[in-house]
Amino acid sequence: MSVEPLEKRPVIAGLRALLGKRLSTGATACAHHGKDASYHPAHAPEAVAFPENGEEVRAIVRLCADHGTPMVPFGLGTSLEGHIAALHGGVCIDVSRMNRIVRVNADDMDACVEAGVTRKQLNRHLRDTGLFFPIDPGADATIGGMAATRASGTNAVRYGTMREAVLGLTVILADGRMIRTARRARKSSAGYDLTRLFVGSEGTLGVITEVTLRLHGIPEAMSSAVCAFDNLEGAVNTVIMTIQCGVPVARIELLDRHTMIVVNAYSGLDHTEAPTLFFEFHGSAASVAEQAKAVEEIAAESGGQGFQWAVRQEDRNRLWQARHDAYFATLALRPGAQGFPTDVCVPISRLAECIGETQEDLAASNIVAPLVGHVGDGNFHVIFLIDPENASEVAEAKRLNERLVARAILADGTCTGEHGVGYGKLDFLPMEHGEAVDVMCQIKRSLDPDNLMNPGKVVRI
Amino acid sequence: MSVEPLEKRPVIAGLRALLGKRLSTGATACAHHGKDASYHPAHAPEAVAFPENGEEVRAIVRLCADHGTPMVPFGLGTSLEGHIAALHGGVCIDVSRMNRIVRVNADDMDACVEAGVTRKQLNRHLRDTGLFFPIDPGADATIGGMAATRASGTNAVRYGTMREAVLGLTVILADGRMIRTARRARKSSAGYDLTRLFVGSEGTLGVITEVTLRLHGIPEAMSSAVCAFDNLEGAVNTVIMTIQCGVPVARIELLDRHTMIVVNAYSGLDHTEAPTLFFEFHGSAASVAEQAKAVEEIAAESGGQGFQWAVRQEDRNRLWQARHDAYFATLALRPGAQGFPTDVCVPISRLAECIGETQEDLAASNIVAPLVGHVGDGNFHVIFLIDPENASEVAEAKRLNERLVARAILADGTCTGEHGVGYGKLDFLPMEHGEAVDVMCQIKRSLDPDNLMNPGKVVRI
Repeated sequence: MSVEPLEKRPVIAGLRALLGKRLSTGATACAHHGKDASYHPAHAPEAVAFPENGEEVRAIVRLCADHGTPMVPFGLGTSLEGHIAALHGGVCIDVSRMNRIVRVNADDMDACVEAGVTRKQLNRHLRDTGLFFPIDPGADATIGGMAATRASGTNAVRYGTMREAVLGLTVILADGRMIRTARRARKSSAGYDLTRLFVGSEGTLGVITEVTLRLHGIPEAMSSAVCAFDNLEGAVNTVIMTIQCGVPVARIELLDRHTMIVVNAYSGLDHTEAPTLFFEFHGSAASVAEQAKAVEEIAAESGGQGFQWAVRQEDRNRLWQARHDAYFATLALRPGAQGFPTDVCVPISRLAECIGETQEDLAASNIVAPLVGHVGDGNFHVIFLIDPENASEVAEAKRLNERLVARAILADGTCTGEHGVGYGKLDFLPMEHGEAVDVMCQIKRSLDPDNLMNPGKVVRI
Repeated sequence: MSVEPLEKRPVIAGLRALLGKRLSTGATACAHHGKDASYHPAHAPEAVAFPENGEEVRAIVRLCADHGTPMVPFGLGTSLEGHIAALHGGVCIDVSRMNRIVRVNADDMDACVEAGVTRKQLNRHLRDTGLFFPIDPGADATIGGMAATRASGTNAVRYGTMREAVLGLTVILADGRMIRTARRARKSSAGYDLTRLFVGSEGTLGVITEVTLRLHGIPEAMSSAVCAFDNLEGAVNTVIMTIQCGVPVARIELLDRHTMIVVNAYSGLDHTEAPTLFFEFHGSAASVAEQAKAVEEIAAESGGQGFQWAVRQEDRNRLWQARHDAYFATLALRPGAQGFPTDVCVPISRLAECIGETQEDLAASNIVAPLVGHVGDGNFHVIFLIDPENASEVAEAKRLNERLVARAILADGTCTGEHGVGYGKLDFLPMEHGEAVDVMCQIKRSLDPDNLMNPGKVVRI
């Protein structure tokens, strides 16, 4: 595609007049904006717009709508199911320049940020307030992107997901209307819950420009613990008992035996090579000690082989290092390979069975695929290590993924706990939701009749 | 209206054939089903259907839809904003016979119930499991009704509202389709959050037939405390500090000075006649002691006049009696009068100002109206005591209510924290949500194009 005709297209000419150099049609920028952090093939947009405020987003959306041009909102591109692929071409709306922290209401423990603010940026800004924003999906994603994909991460078991964290959104709809979905009250029964409708809508119903977030007080004390188990059932039973006993754990992460071997080798650690749980406790000093003691007793009853507990920051970091290194240790197993991460979530009573069957599947395959999980929520990931150019490897990973998703749905779980649908999991939605998918389509059609907002994602129109 | 012609109407004849005696067209049943627990005038339906399962609800909805007959779902009629008034006639669908507890998954801490199960019924059923369903709106409402109105109550500050409590719903849509909005995973990013869309939709998008709920472990220990304050600001500052310090209180209730005077007189109590906070703490024995100590210190810094703490059940009941008696003590002030309860919710930093201005308004009026609040969430109620036959009293209460709602919305709050919209608060929605109300209307039209599902509530079509 040559640059000349593109620049003459009315929508591009209009965007150029609006944004000047903040519209890019260069091949590099377009390619970069069509690729997420997963193995999904790139689908580059035809142009990338860099608005600096909500009114500019509104003008971009109106221009694109007038010309029937698809729009794909973009935060930092850390999503994992092809959310930002421009499947039908069109314009990428990159909100990364919209990175102002609009307001912090410390008394109310909330903050309003533009969509391009990242979670680490927000937490740096909050440092002196005694407050923090807990949701941690791993990547330093934008808050707008996290809201759009209903992200969560390791501490959702205590602090919830973006579903609970978002108090309200400002959204530009497909026809250019700008709405605010809710005010700052902690609870409301005033009409349909548009906030929750747009959280997780992945840009298919509108572009999120501002997010009002619930914050939390930085806990007085934190402690961590690690415990290896004779077998997976023991680890999972410990999780179930911990949750049932109401221990308000901040994190419970599971690494399977295979991942522990990989991490030990990668980071020179000497953890027991067995299914292992990593815990974090938040609260008062007395409370974290009490929580750790309660969990230690529970673990001992379920075949826990020693319980290492740490309070000082450096000791906690050391304990958690294996968990933090898991992804990179996995990638290092096979230089040049890419990660194909998948994500399911099941009721915790079904977790041991689902993980066990998945491990059997993996053992019978030639694909290397460590397993890690935010098991307090029943959420776990498998990271297939593949060469994306090798069709048979991709096919085998897809086959294993399909079996995993079917297993999770049969266990009354979901095809994605936190990564979202994008187009990578689009075809699993009917299996999970049946006719409810038609209701999603009706809502999509009513708010975006021309199917211009991130088309081809979440629902198939 | 004579019975004969009604019975001959095709929709009634069809329902009669379907339900036999479980369709009532009697004046008493109809009148009862058109009146909620508030001062709103009754609007009786033309018939009341008593389905016994979801398939019967589906058949009723299909019959009504075929004949263009409005439908109003009904739990126990404890709502407060005219939710169940049959404004356009039609058929009331009373789900109270759908009262089976479908399944309890103790390991997963969830339960599935039919819509007509009441919260106390569920808690009696759970008694031996160590689990409970915490949401307590006062009345022993049905779970279906609580989901439909996004109910909450005194312990939402710790356990959340129905928004957080509902894991998934089975809903019959306007065209008779039956959908399940989600499976049992604790978190999911698999498509639009239909669960949250239907929670709080007040029967305007479909009829809820089953609800899957998140349960909680019964805390090992509970304790209660009461503390009077020199002034309202001291009480509210104590609330703000308590929340900010991360004390996981289960309840914080405020009674204003006027209400304390009323309650003392009604129940023969000798509480200090001053703004008073009531607390409840849940956790381990050590944790509740620690929480109470933390709150006592905070209260002392804000003019708390003595802090009474109780651990034993009978002592806790005694402390909380004033709070429990507040509504009836208020009604007893003026025999024959009715309560006109209203409900707003604001960010807690605006609570003292909002309550203060409201009290000034009330002092300048001749309406008696105690004030109580679930202040940990910024939620408070005023109960206007009126004679519903006295037009000038009703008008004065409405004027005060309008001023209160406008004040809450100006403070970035909501016109209803937990009672819902019904038709009583319909006209406040544009002030709160602006153009977002049009989005609600679009959704309503897409799912209920003939406006047959509880018409005239939440949105005006």
